[in-house]
Amino acid sequence: MPAEFTMKRCVQFAETDMAGVLHFSNYFRYMEEIEHAFWRSLGLTVYLREGDPHLSWPRVSASCEYAAPLHFEDELEMKLRVTKVGDKSLQYEVEFRRNGQRVAMGKIAAVCCVTQPGSFAATTIPKEIRSRLDRGPLPSPQPSP
Amino acid sequence: MPAEFTMKRCVQFAETDMAGVLHFSNYFRYMEEIEHAFWRSLGLTVYLREGDPHLSWPRVSASCEYAAPLHFEDELEMKLRVTKVGDKSLQYEVEFRRNGQRVAMGKIAAVCCVTQPGSFAATTIPKEIRSRLDRGPLPSPQPSP
Amino acid sequence: MPAEFTMKRCVQFAETDMAGVLHFSNYFRYMEEIEHAFWRSLGLTVYLREGDPHLSWPRVSASCEYAAPLHFEDELEMKLRVTKVGDKSLQYEVEFRRNGQRVAMGKIAAVCCVTQPGSFAATTIPKEIRSRLDRGPLPSPQPSP
Amino acid sequence: MPAEFTMKRCVQFAETDMAGVLHFSNYFRYMEEIEHAFWRSLGLTVYLREGDPHLSWPRVSASCEYAAPLHFEDELEMKLRVTKVGDKSLQYEVEFRRNGQRVAMGKIAAVCCVTQPGSFAATTIPKEIRSRLDRGPLPSPQPSP
Repeated sequence: MPAEFTMKRCVQFAETDMAGVLHFSNYFRYMEEIEHAFWRSLGLTVYLREGDPHLSWPRVSASCEYAAPLHFEDELEMKLRVTKVGDKSLQYEVEFRRNGQRVAMGKIAAVCCVTQPGSFAATTIPKEIRSRLDRGPLPSPQPSP
Repeated sequence: MPAEFTMKRCVQFAETDMAGVLHFSNYFRYMEEIEHAFWRSLGLTVYLREGDPHLSWPRVSASCEYAAPLHFEDELEMKLRVTKVGDKSLQYEVEFRRNGQRVAMGKIAAVCCVTQPGSFAATTIPKEIRSRLDRGPLPSPQPSP
Repeated sequence: MPAEFTMKRCVQFAETDMAGVLHFSNYFRYMEEIEHAFWRSLGLTVYLREGDPHLSWPRVSASCEYAAPLHFEDELEMKLRVTKVGDKSLQYEVEFRRNGQRVAMGKIAAVCCVTQPGSFAATTIPKEIRSRLDRGPLPSPQPSP
Repeated sequence: MPAEFTMKRCVQFAETDMAGVLHFSNYFRYMEEIEHAFWRSLGLTVYLREGDPHLSWPRVSASCEYAAPLHFEDELEMKLRVTKVGDKSLQYEVEFRRNGQRVAMGKIAAVCCVTQPGSFAATTIPKEIRSRLDRGPLPSPQPSP
């Protein structure tokens, strides 16, 4: 049951818009932040600066459903769950909660790629990464209380 | 056949990331930019500064599928199509093309709301706006060549 | 000696650009983040959602000097120092360090304003805020080691 | 009198913040956008994707003075003026006007660098670029009317 990860995040001023709420595009940035924190928690990084070709995870799709607006200084609890580990791809979802209430739900599908600046070539997920991710079917998301 | 709108957009440096491509979250900003240009083309604006309660369109869902990466200074052709006009809601999709090739496809569903800073209340789409949007069933998107 | 505040910050992927470094505009966002964390540490917030006119601090100037690039996942130590408290205005500087080395230095001057959406009117800094800020001349910044 | 360039720019929704104005950090992005459009107008680009080491212009300092807030859908006229061409460095300023009134003034100093992802090495500005930039002392900025 390991491929689950939680993180807190405070909504910043520059992330709001003139409607007074977190801009809807920023949820996708938050999803990526928790993804990267998740990789770090596994001792991995999504990107290696030195050396030439290396792994990254370009997105094939991303989506978010918004249930309630978020405001400046709101404290979020985010939960990432890996929902599918394919041969060369990965899917995860991120639940956004505030005070225990779900306020948004996002999904990302990404492909494992050997990456050079500006270009990507899909590759099989390395065993070492798979072994950290692929520990049996993951529990389906708990319904929001 | 009116509720369709096209716009060109050049990928800016600050919108790229260290993988050398347009960051996936920025497609959602581009979608909003064309939506707002579309509203302006109808003589409308999504937001009115003066006066108190006014209309805006908070999102209930947003998604994007990515077919090919975009790079700094790429010239995009974007096409917005309104796909559904409900009683209080609106759906549209945005096709991203470069050199005639589809590189991404996004969708947004939004609700017509009377808006005050930080809060929203769903309302029926005003006749004046509906009459500009709701001109019979829209053609389904053309397949990518 | 209180009007000094420190915070850690990790460089996020979406904040980098295709040159592989933290985009220079994002240092200004980081400065604002530490400013707001500083306000919170004083029991204040820069912005109040409810109620009508309220206080915020629009900027009259902002600047940053960059000594070394920052990269994805770099861990920064940021230090804010209030350098001047005027009748209606405030100046502060933010030092960015990585591994004890200064990598950038920013400054912001802001005006205390009664704020309504989209407009600002300068006002005297309230006593309550001043008393938390204005505790004698602040020490000048320590030279970078 | 050539090293001057003008551009129009419309303030986008996602660039505003909950105070209802263009976020102060985005002026720096606008400055970079006009810089890059200026390079393009000279037949140059700031960054080359293919090939290995290439030129870019990391910033050594950036500043902006704000005279009046900008709002969603404001139409700006921006004017870039190159103010100094050094051996390895470049300085320029950008004036922001709305309806003929100056609303902000920014400055950037950048160094010509041979760039690899994540690292920079200062280099002499190539003759070809210098010859396009360095056409005698530039006129000092006209005072705002």
